[in-house]
Amino acid sequence: MVLMSSRTSLDVRYVETDAMGIVHHSNFLHWMEVARTDFMRDGDKSYRDFESKGLRLVVIGVEVVYRGSARYGDQVQIETKLVKVHPRGVTFHYQIFVAKQLIATGHTEHLVTNTYGKTVSMPTEWLDYLKQIHMLHRGN
Amino acid sequence: MVLMSSRTSLDVRYVETDAMGIVHHSNFLHWMEVARTDFMRDGDKSYRDFESKGLRLVVIGVEVVYRGSARYGDQVQIETKLVKVHPRGVTFHYQIFVAKQLIATGHTEHLVTNTYGKTVSMPTEWLDYLKQIHMLHRGN
Amino acid sequence: MVLMSSRTSLDVRYVETDAMGIVHHSNFLHWMEVARTDFMRDGDKSYRDFESKGLRLVVIGVEVVYRGSARYGDQVQIETKLVKVHPRGVTFHYQIFVAKQLIATGHTEHLVTNTYGKTVSMPTEWLDYLKQIHMLHRGN
Amino acid sequence: MVLMSSRTSLDVRYVETDAMGIVHHSNFLHWMEVARTDFMRDGDKSYRDFESKGLRLVVIGVEVVYRGSARYGDQVQIETKLVKVHPRGVTFHYQIFVAKQLIATGHTEHLVTNTYGKTVSMPTEWLDYLKQIHMLHRGN
Repeated sequence: MVLMSSRTSLDVRYVETDAMGIVHHSNFLHWMEVARTDFMRDGDKSYRDFESKGLRLVVIGVEVVYRGSARYGDQVQIETKLVKVHPRGVTFHYQIFVAKQLIATGHTEHLVTNTYGKTVSMPTEWLDYLKQIHMLHRGN
Repeated sequence: MVLMSSRTSLDVRYVETDAMGIVHHSNFLHWMEVARTDFMRDGDKSYRDFESKGLRLVVIGVEVVYRGSARYGDQVQIETKLVKVHPRGVTFHYQIFVAKQLIATGHTEHLVTNTYGKTVSMPTEWLDYLKQIHMLHRGN
Repeated sequence: MVLMSSRTSLDVRYVETDAMGIVHHSNFLHWMEVARTDFMRDGDKSYRDFESKGLRLVVIGVEVVYRGSARYGDQVQIETKLVKVHPRGVTFHYQIFVAKQLIATGHTEHLVTNTYGKTVSMPTEWLDYLKQIHMLHRGN
Repeated sequence: MVLMSSRTSLDVRYVETDAMGIVHHSNFLHWMEVARTDFMRDGDKSYRDFESKGLRLVVIGVEVVYRGSARYGDQVQIETKLVKVHPRGVTFHYQIFVAKQLIATGHTEHLVTNTYGKTVSMPTEWLDYLKQIHMLHRGN
């Protein structure tokens, strides 16, 4: 089975808006987190499984470029790609759309740690799993 | 030393507003949490100490009545009282003001648990500490 | 067409958890808001339409009783009913489940206002629309 | 009067933590927003005044590099600098500390718009005000 790009759909929540009438920019980080959860679940594993192994994907960097805005009632689409996979970390890239219009791009960089926050290498099975999804995505 | 009512001051954050131009009602729960943290720190202990004993104050009930609203730039004042203290739980009461006008009242009910979520009794020293603050507040 | 109870499904977001390892209690208010948005959209109107008429449903009271907890990775189900409909306000009731276990019940009370926050009566078409959904739900 | 770097102190809120036991990375954007509000208030104007002129500082880009973490009970210090000022936009830079240890650096890029989201130039008095703070900060 060849996986396509991971896609996530979200309805804008009222609480996500601010006094400008649009979604507050910090919520894009929440959406990107939902999107990479979906991405990791696209095969037969999930981030919850990852955590149950005593592993964490700690965020060490984020970047978002905003090109438009989202409003309450909008449906948001997110396309997620894994652009780097190392034993000690991964980098995701995101494109966020409303009504097929690109409203933001972003990426997040993650380090693998144990539950005490110490950097560790991820188990081979996970590395292979992510690399495999990675390859499939690159194949698009 | 006789403690007065615990008072907390907060500046409304932009992210707390919503598309109505006012603070989203869910943030009042965040403020009440900050207020009871301040309350517990009014003596020589803190909620962080409480957690370091392997204890948690789990929220089992909340109620808020909204009488007004807060806006970005407003300073919010919260008056907190401990209205019930049992070995297994506590109840806080809150009054929230903007510019001396009461904009909300609320209360939260809490159960004492261990880190596994099992209901336990709090240590005598903590029960005494909270009862003492309780008495002082009632003495106002 | 007879509407059944409005049901909403949500996946717990990582950002919704707190240091206790469970969902922070304030997020239940966010979920209840999503649930009533779904409820209002169950017919041929939506809360977005309501706002486009210059109307707002301001929250004037909330109450939540917590009986259990939700964790990252859980799917949450919410059943929503409209328990009161007046020209000037409505009251919703919610039951929140994880894996068919009731983890919380709540209600929210709302007032109809214009965009300036002044209390107004809702248009007859909206009153009829909500009453009709109300009846159908009561008929269950 | 020569202004020093704008400094903001915040106590970590429980709701800001996540299941890893540390502050969720998205809250750093909330803190940076509080910090630039403080920055703009360091003179005789505030962002609220800016909004009252029908102007908005829309976020068009954010970047955060995380070097450490913050926990419930920690006090966070933020140092804010204005690193670019144009009639149509500004860029802020932030350093975030816990117990004098740098836990994150970030910047946010903003565009000036009117209330309809249309790009505009800021009034000369605001440009001069920000440039003046800018100069003073650079003078440190």
